[in-house]
Amino acid sequence: MYEVQTKIRVRYGETDQMGYVYYGNYASYYEVARVESLRQLGFAYRELEEIGIMLPVLENKSKYHKPAKYDELLTIKVCIPEMPALKMKFCYQIFNEENLLINSGETTLVFIKKATMKPCRMPKVMIGLLEPYFVA
Amino acid sequence: MYEVQTKIRVRYGETDQMGYVYYGNYASYYEVARVESLRQLGFAYRELEEIGIMLPVLENKSKYHKPAKYDELLTIKVCIPEMPALKMKFCYQIFNEENLLINSGETTLVFIKKATMKPCRMPKVMIGLLEPYFVA
Amino acid sequence: MYEVQTKIRVRYGETDQMGYVYYGNYASYYEVARVESLRQLGFAYRELEEIGIMLPVLENKSKYHKPAKYDELLTIKVCIPEMPALKMKFCYQIFNEENLLINSGETTLVFIKKATMKPCRMPKVMIGLLEPYFVA
Amino acid sequence: MYEVQTKIRVRYGETDQMGYVYYGNYASYYEVARVESLRQLGFAYRELEEIGIMLPVLENKSKYHKPAKYDELLTIKVCIPEMPALKMKFCYQIFNEENLLINSGETTLVFIKKATMKPCRMPKVMIGLLEPYFVA
Repeated sequence: MYEVQTKIRVRYGETDQMGYVYYGNYASYYEVARVESLRQLGFAYRELEEIGIMLPVLENKSKYHKPAKYDELLTIKVCIPEMPALKMKFCYQIFNEENLLINSGETTLVFIKKATMKPCRMPKVMIGLLEPYFVA
Repeated sequence: MYEVQTKIRVRYGETDQMGYVYYGNYASYYEVARVESLRQLGFAYRELEEIGIMLPVLENKSKYHKPAKYDELLTIKVCIPEMPALKMKFCYQIFNEENLLINSGETTLVFIKKATMKPCRMPKVMIGLLEPYFVA
Repeated sequence: MYEVQTKIRVRYGETDQMGYVYYGNYASYYEVARVESLRQLGFAYRELEEIGIMLPVLENKSKYHKPAKYDELLTIKVCIPEMPALKMKFCYQIFNEENLLINSGETTLVFIKKATMKPCRMPKVMIGLLEPYFVA
Repeated sequence: MYEVQTKIRVRYGETDQMGYVYYGNYASYYEVARVESLRQLGFAYRELEEIGIMLPVLENKSKYHKPAKYDELLTIKVCIPEMPALKMKFCYQIFNEENLLINSGETTLVFIKKATMKPCRMPKVMIGLLEPYFVA
């Protein structure tokens, strides 16, 4: 398992008139966490698109345990629970400044070769970086 | 079961550099569909907040079958599969202009009394409007 | 001068914790108004990109006279004040349900040929559609 | 004059199908820059709302010199050009990773007392923090 943490501060425009972060904005927080988790591994997601591979989302699930508020500095724990092959799964737990779990979720993405628009395997450079975290 | 349809046209700002609707924007489409489904029933969601009840999201799930593209006029079928009590569940199926299913999802919301911030039952006015759709 | 009207209903996620539409979301309303103004003229903006021309924004200005609220059905008057050549200017006035002016703004865009990334003239099909509105 | 810098990394969902940051998202970058400029001064914007004062936007202007791209780490120079009284003005210059100016803008906000919904003067705590930057 590969697991890292990243931080996000809630923007004003991400709240809604209920006074909390709008439920649709968590998907963007998840995206930031995914990208930062890969960056900490030594891989920039943008390189993926530069070598002709897209990683669209297949499935996304969120549970909203408590509200997130404006200006809070949230901590997102993101993990890749299993070695990706054709698909890649990310799990998230978001904590507020009082260290309470406010949101949990998971996203499944699929590797697509832009040239053919067909699914493909995770590129070797990513395999090399992730494998050490999944050896028995 | 209560089921209605609503239409949404994809905005430019809702696409991302992959050329498709960003996965996080479907939550906003779901919200529009929920609100329009209640409006067609004869109830404006904003009245709910005016009588001191909030309806925050507890859980949201999405499956992305095909991409949605800029300027497409999407059809959202939204249904309330069971008579709500403390919680309210909505299911969605989104179709593109070629009538292909591109996205499906569901959202569970909970009635909260603003004054106490405690869960409460669905207000009577909504019960009266929804009940006819759930009689045996 | 070419002038049309379009309507937009405020979405929940577009409000912020002040209880009004977040100031950054007007740019998206302007975009919808621009696209609908062209559609009413007989031209789909997406065709522009399909023939290899992009129309990025050069400048945008907004004045916020009164707040827009959740679920309000806003009326946007959009006009093209002068015949476009290399650039295209749009002006907007947004009115709430009580017909009060709540926002005014203008956007200047520029025609760019994707192949060369250089500015180009407005395509002939658009000239033909717009010219009747700018004859003396 | 009070001037500080802040950094923002472009999120995937902030790009559009042109492959650049959507023009409407700069307002959110400006907001982050405003809030961080006050934080570096020793004042959290959220305290303002906690003491019953709102700071809605009156006017916003943006010039788009060059596109911002996905994953770029942007530098935002934000300045308060004159000592605020009833209104508060912020100016911005956004630079990309190659230190090129890509966007400039300004926003004027107004202090409003929530209880009366009338304009009011900037609170004393902010005056005290800002004054040293505006002495001759």
